[in-house]
Amino acid sequence: MALLVQKYGGTSVGSIERIEAVAQRVKRYRNNGDDIVVVVSAMSGETDRLLALAAELDENACAREKDVLVSTGEQVTIALLSIALQKIGCDAVSMTGDQLRMHTDDAHGKARITQVDDSKILEQLQKGNVVVVAGFQGRAPDNSITTLGRGGSDTTAVAIAAAVKADECQIYTDVDGVYTTDPRVEPRARRLASITFEEMLEMASLGAKVLQIRSVEFAGKYNVPLRVLSSFEENSTGTLISFERKRMESAIISGIAFMRDTASLTILGVPDRPAIAATILEPIGQADIDVDMIVQNSMGDGTADFTFTLNRNDYAKAKELLEQSAKNLGAGVVYGNDRIAKLSIVGVGMMNHPGVARTMFDTLGQEGINMELISTSEIKVSVIIDEKYLELGVRALHRAFGLENVAKEENN
Amino acid sequence: MALLVQKYGGTSVGSIERIEAVAQRVKRYRNNGDDIVVVVSAMSGETDRLLALAAELDENACAREKDVLVSTGEQVTIALLSIALQKIGCDAVSMTGDQLRMHTDDAHGKARITQVDDSKILEQLQKGNVVVVAGFQGRAPDNSITTLGRGGSDTTAVAIAAAVKADECQIYTDVDGVYTTDPRVEPRARRLASITFEEMLEMASLGAKVLQIRSVEFAGKYNVPLRVLSSFEENSTGTLISFERKRMESAIISGIAFMRDTASLTILGVPDRPAIAATILEPIGQADIDVDMIVQNSMGDGTADFTFTLNRNDYAKAKELLEQSAKNLGAGVVYGNDRIAKLSIVGVGMMNHPGVARTMFDTLGQEGINMELISTSEIKVSVIIDEKYLELGVRALHRAFGLENVAKEENN
Repeated sequence: MALLVQKYGGTSVGSIERIEAVAQRVKRYRNNGDDIVVVVSAMSGETDRLLALAAELDENACAREKDVLVSTGEQVTIALLSIALQKIGCDAVSMTGDQLRMHTDDAHGKARITQVDDSKILEQLQKGNVVVVAGFQGRAPDNSITTLGRGGSDTTAVAIAAAVKADECQIYTDVDGVYTTDPRVEPRARRLASITFEEMLEMASLGAKVLQIRSVEFAGKYNVPLRVLSSFEENSTGTLISFERKRMESAIISGIAFMRDTASLTILGVPDRPAIAATILEPIGQADIDVDMIVQNSMGDGTADFTFTLNRNDYAKAKELLEQSAKNLGAGVVYGNDRIAKLSIVGVGMMNHPGVARTMFDTLGQEGINMELISTSEIKVSVIIDEKYLELGVRALHRAFGLENVAKEENN
Repeated sequence: MALLVQKYGGTSVGSIERIEAVAQRVKRYRNNGDDIVVVVSAMSGETDRLLALAAELDENACAREKDVLVSTGEQVTIALLSIALQKIGCDAVSMTGDQLRMHTDDAHGKARITQVDDSKILEQLQKGNVVVVAGFQGRAPDNSITTLGRGGSDTTAVAIAAAVKADECQIYTDVDGVYTTDPRVEPRARRLASITFEEMLEMASLGAKVLQIRSVEFAGKYNVPLRVLSSFEENSTGTLISFERKRMESAIISGIAFMRDTASLTILGVPDRPAIAATILEPIGQADIDVDMIVQNSMGDGTADFTFTLNRNDYAKAKELLEQSAKNLGAGVVYGNDRIAKLSIVGVGMMNHPGVARTMFDTLGQEGINMELISTSEIKVSVIIDEKYLELGVRALHRAFGLENVAKEENN
């Protein structure tokens, strides 16, 4: 007997048959005596369909009205899932973000949750109902409908789990958990039974698109155990994300993350003075370009070399801005590379194992892979390599850190 | 400068192009200095699409959840129309039934409005916004979403017009007004420039499907001038429905209404005692069968013949029930006719012209049309005839009462 919040994404509720399958799964938990809050997304494709209608009228449609529009997607799903649950004898009641008092700020299209009222949900659970909640939506101070931004249903689920003090927040998706790396690159990748919030944040931000990063932050902040599961497989326990580290100590790293479509820009011979980085990055930030890794090397002659990485889509624009900055600063040439990829190892285990970075560098070196940039944090090491070596690098590191065996152990 | 409530039905907002056309029309009124509240339905086909999804899950889906589901249809339209208005420089804001505080009872799927809060709408009009309101929906005392039943957007419009004391409530539809009869039956049918509430009620209930009858009742009750207009024609002034009678006194009747798919049932030799009608009709009512005309003839021998008409779909079921009643009452045979139609003349003018019914009977007689049942009220005379004579009867009466000329006069 537990209080569970279960979140089903767009693919999991993408058809009438899948909604019926979700209802059956919820009923099995309910029959076990669990209390269930279900958070759902719009049926897959629906949000895009609605946004396309708005775009036909106005490419720059007002954010408030776009929220009124797209929030109907989740509203359709909560009604259909409630009907499906009732049909199989499972009492259920639907709630919009407004009805459950999901208070947010008024940043339409990317609102942040300010407060969740647990009373409406607890009242319905008390009555024996499964509570079916529309994810992704809330209510602004002026009573307008807001949305949390795309994928925000994960955040809704975690926020509700925190508010009602759920035993676990289960995120059902189309993969059955978090893997040691992308199985499309390394077929021997294994599902992790558990991972810490910090590791998950590094994995997510590095490109393993399992969970919305904001929801992981939220879960860590409120200490809500989060479990990623497949909505299509019955017997997998998925991956539990929590503060605890349940793995054997032998598991030094948890996974290999990577990001394609990366580019780097370097400016040579900038004056080596405090705040020079801020001066260089200011026009980049004003152009709404996100910067990822930043490396600055002092040359010892009063100048420094400054390099940063960014998404490949922003490369041309950023290069132009940087050339202007170089002129203003009296710096040297600007050069860049838009054929690179980022490769990272992530794991809390490396804090106690100083040789980890060395193993990584050795492994890549043996494969003849040159590292153009290195950046480290307490629980990850990232390197920039030529994109053509990316798959080779992933497989080499996966093998070098024995991830196929480690994962096997912990899953048993 | 006026305060107008304009209602656009599903066909009028059935595509992006049509929504843009509605926006252009609203803007023209706005440019004239009018304050506008727009009430919209779901895009045509949308409500049926949503109900089909629910029916796939459960033919008898819970009414509360069906309301959550179908109310998304209007919500999509208010967002899209607001975006379209803003795009052409016309300030607009959308409101769901919940947001504007359209209070209803909790009869999901057929809720009745209990109170309309005008403050939210007036506040937005004050700010210079066109207020775009979702028709058909409201909020139950427990904050659940309700719907007013199909076609209920007309009622929403009238209720809002009454609450904000609008100068006129304009119902835009795919016909350009109320006609003297159905132009598909009598090509010389003419649009009426005006008609009274009472006449419209008789016309609507008799089958001229221009307006929801509940909205006409509501408009009469709160004395809201109602105008039916085409959303596809620019220059027609449609038909004004009000308490006043603007037509020439020569217009004795306003129109010929009719209803196909009618059936009648007669029970012979029932005991002629008080409340016998109630005894006979009780099982019919319990079976949710609506009865239309009722005629009872005392035979002078302590028995009476009792006849009523009903929708043809209910005929078989009702006949079975009536045969049971006949047995219980010790009455005579039950017989019926499911190949009949109802033909009516409607007009406040007939109150001062006692010869009107006579003209009707003479006209039908000259065409060899037999009347099986006659029922009269102050402003209408209805007769039941063999359905094969229906079109003939309509055309004969239209000519006999000179409706093509009368209508021409009043439209000039």
